[in-house]
Amino acid sequence: MTFDTAWARLVARLREIHLLDASSDLLAWDREVGMPEQGLAQRADAQALLARLSHERSIDPALDDDLTASEEIARAGGATEVQRASLRELRRRIDRKRKLPSALVAECAFVEANAQSHWAAARAANDFPAFRPWLERLVGLARAKAAAFGTPAGGETWDALAEDFEPGVRARELRALFADLVPRQTALVRRCVASPRRPDDSARRVPVPIAAQEAFVNEVARALGFDFARGRLDRSSHPFTSGTHANDVRITTRFHECDLFDALYSTIHEVGHGLYEQGLSVTAAGLPAGQAASLGIHESQSRLWENHVGRSAAFWEWCAPRLRRHAGTSERVHSAAALAHAAWRVEPSLIRVDADEATYDLHVAIRFAIEQELLDGSLSVADLPGRWNALYKEVLGVLVPDDRSGCLQDVHWSAGLFGYFPTYTLGNLAAAQWMASARAELGDLDAAFAAGEFGPLLSWLRRRVHSPGATLTPRELLIAGTGRELGTEAFLEHLQAQLLPAHGLDRDGRRE
Amino acid sequence: MTFDTAWARLVARLREIHLLDASSDLLAWDREVGMPEQGLAQRADAQALLARLSHERSIDPALDDDLTASEEIARAGGATEVQRASLRELRRRIDRKRKLPSALVAECAFVEANAQSHWAAARAANDFPAFRPWLERLVGLARAKAAAFGTPAGGETWDALAEDFEPGVRARELRALFADLVPRQTALVRRCVASPRRPDDSARRVPVPIAAQEAFVNEVARALGFDFARGRLDRSSHPFTSGTHANDVRITTRFHECDLFDALYSTIHEVGHGLYEQGLSVTAAGLPAGQAASLGIHESQSRLWENHVGRSAAFWEWCAPRLRRHAGTSERVHSAAALAHAAWRVEPSLIRVDADEATYDLHVAIRFAIEQELLDGSLSVADLPGRWNALYKEVLGVLVPDDRSGCLQDVHWSAGLFGYFPTYTLGNLAAAQWMASARAELGDLDAAFAAGEFGPLLSWLRRRVHSPGATLTPRELLIAGTGRELGTEAFLEHLQAQLLPAHGLDRDGRRE
Repeated sequence: MTFDTAWARLVARLREIHLLDASSDLLAWDREVGMPEQGLAQRADAQALLARLSHERSIDPALDDDLTASEEIARAGGATEVQRASLRELRRRIDRKRKLPSALVAECAFVEANAQSHWAAARAANDFPAFRPWLERLVGLARAKAAAFGTPAGGETWDALAEDFEPGVRARELRALFADLVPRQTALVRRCVASPRRPDDSARRVPVPIAAQEAFVNEVARALGFDFARGRLDRSSHPFTSGTHANDVRITTRFHECDLFDALYSTIHEVGHGLYEQGLSVTAAGLPAGQAASLGIHESQSRLWENHVGRSAAFWEWCAPRLRRHAGTSERVHSAAALAHAAWRVEPSLIRVDADEATYDLHVAIRFAIEQELLDGSLSVADLPGRWNALYKEVLGVLVPDDRSGCLQDVHWSAGLFGYFPTYTLGNLAAAQWMASARAELGDLDAAFAAGEFGPLLSWLRRRVHSPGATLTPRELLIAGTGRELGTEAFLEHLQAQLLPAHGLDRDGRRE
Repeated sequence: MTFDTAWARLVARLREIHLLDASSDLLAWDREVGMPEQGLAQRADAQALLARLSHERSIDPALDDDLTASEEIARAGGATEVQRASLRELRRRIDRKRKLPSALVAECAFVEANAQSHWAAARAANDFPAFRPWLERLVGLARAKAAAFGTPAGGETWDALAEDFEPGVRARELRALFADLVPRQTALVRRCVASPRRPDDSARRVPVPIAAQEAFVNEVARALGFDFARGRLDRSSHPFTSGTHANDVRITTRFHECDLFDALYSTIHEVGHGLYEQGLSVTAAGLPAGQAASLGIHESQSRLWENHVGRSAAFWEWCAPRLRRHAGTSERVHSAAALAHAAWRVEPSLIRVDADEATYDLHVAIRFAIEQELLDGSLSVADLPGRWNALYKEVLGVLVPDDRSGCLQDVHWSAGLFGYFPTYTLGNLAAAQWMASARAELGDLDAAFAAGEFGPLLSWLRRRVHSPGATLTPRELLIAGTGRELGTEAFLEHLQAQLLPAHGLDRDGRRE
């Protein structure tokens, strides 16, 4: 058999898995965006069936055989570099999937599906005890999955789970990152909050009719480069991106008449995810070459557009007149300066998804600490609310009034996602590194943003981040694109530059 | 094995087929309603995969085994009447599917998928020769399918194909129906057109903003009984109903600012289909008890609501004030009488989907005649345009200016649907019979319609038409519900009563 024959057989199998997953993605998108309320039970069954058919194909020994044949022939030559990288990544994923016993996969699917609705009900009723037995089962299943995967050499339980979201990530390294980041970020937050010259954020709260906001965020999405011939922008209660393949990328946002930033920054965040999906190869859909490198890299794209572009003074120079045109407001109400200042206000708060740039990672650090403790058994589920509330007081200085605003706020654990949260911070750190490199290479990006020219940055990201797909590991991608290992410096530098002057402080945090 | 065990195994298999089909339906709905334009290629592949997985399960010998086991145990007792009826219908369908060789199924899928886009391009370019080779292949495949199915005893080639759409229908019986119907309908049309007092239809053409039309048709759909907790109403270029299951039924319509009837009657037509789908058993989804009896019965529901309810004077008494409220027009512009008259105008035309009630079946008769000739070889595809144009001149008295308005207007043949068209007329005939029975049993339905009370009619249809699903044959259903075999009398009676007075003619067609 030639390499091309073996490869073609492998690609055909992966293509079928991709088409099943893409169909399931559409069902999931529709469930959030448009499904009639009574359609849920049948929809859950259909999604479960498609997931099962996809999983069966992923662990089919015949797929393993085709992969093995491709690997063997590739070693003798004939494969391209991208193909060899794809084979490595496929081997990693398939070996991982085949380690999970089918009974465990089925139990996880059942418990996760039920736990999510129990979580939603418990959150609505502010009733942690109702969710507690489900969370206990979920922690138990997470440990069982970690045991099945096996702890990586020199690693720990958490690492075995995180590998699905961020290949190669290690809890030990993350603890070091957070140990560096948290005190410096906390100090920055304290200085901002203590400043007598805190930015006024009233400009974001001027009521703007939702139809006007909708037209506005559509214009912004288009201007940033989101291709509506290959995507859609809809509404859902929680914004998300559904990337079926590069030619059908669906992002959502939500609207509040009295907080235009909710719609705007949700949109820009999802546009960042959407641009990454639209930048992947559609012909390689279902193959590593056509897939995102990791969740951390994905988040680096959403956070880059949201915080480095969308919260810049230069962006608001371009954007403020557009907002005024849609909202029918005057420059007195919606000046570029007032809007940028509103975007820079630092304020410790209870809810991660609403957090400002400076406090966001403190929320992530708390969840990372807690999930390690849950997994190693040093924290029982029963003690979660107390531990959560204590950490919020200690790290963010806020009092949690109830579990709805506390440990019940996030969906992740109820969906069995342990090892996921730190990808948000990895995204923030990587975003700052990408942006520092892009600024160094592309010249005056602020002048471009102020003129509404976002294409040069997008082209740079297409080349450095999007086009390799998952043929490089997250670490390889970052080093190839920025010349540096992941660290905290670029991110802290960005926070200081963007936030301190707005709070009347110099770059060292002293009053100007 | 007990019957319950055998039945449960069978149901589980059918459930999986249903979930695959429902997923495919959603992909198809989304393609028409919201898919980004560049998503087509991947979507077609995903639909083809789901269709293949569904078909494989339909012809799986293990399904046949479970069906056979259920049949054998049912003969010894233990099955309900509905279960025995379901087994008969399942046997009919499965035997039919298993008669088609896989290679033929694959060839049909390929040719139909390609032919449809070639048809669309040929129609846009008014270029029949470009479509001709595809239609020749489609006719050849239709004959091959008919040969594989086998002609029913005493039947002919056409019958073998029509069985998929209308179980038990025979071309011979249809020719007799049309031989009765066409001359009488033609005579009615001639009298209407020759009348010096033809209804003025200008009320439908008063411009109404599309947003107002959209709110209006949503109100009408809701009032007729369409349940928005179990369905949606969207826009698409060709209105259709996508019935995934009774709790997720999606109908579409379209809007033209200067023809409000296009949106209104498209909506009411699809509401009729949608009410049928919502009236099927959701717990029996995927089983005959939860499926429509036939396309003719389906069409009887859409045509009943469109023509017997929506074009009645009583309906317009209720509806006209609602239209005026949405459109912001006066009673002088949109009176109930003017709107009803606009709905009654008879005018022979070129396009079936735009045809009035009196001429609609003449379009169907032409297609039925032509497809029999194509299948028996007496008409070559090359001669189709000439034959089409001659029949339009002969039957409808109109000159076809080009093939786009002629033999290229309908999608059906390009999708391999031979034997389908007469279901439209079967629907018209059955609709009139349902309505005559409902009027006889429910008392003054016009008074109810004028008061906006459509519930009594819907409840009657739920009981007589919807709830049996496909556990009765179309013929059994009609006889059980109306006490009569299908015939032309009720329909012709309805046409005369609804249309002649509006043209200043008495019930015998003489001037009043």
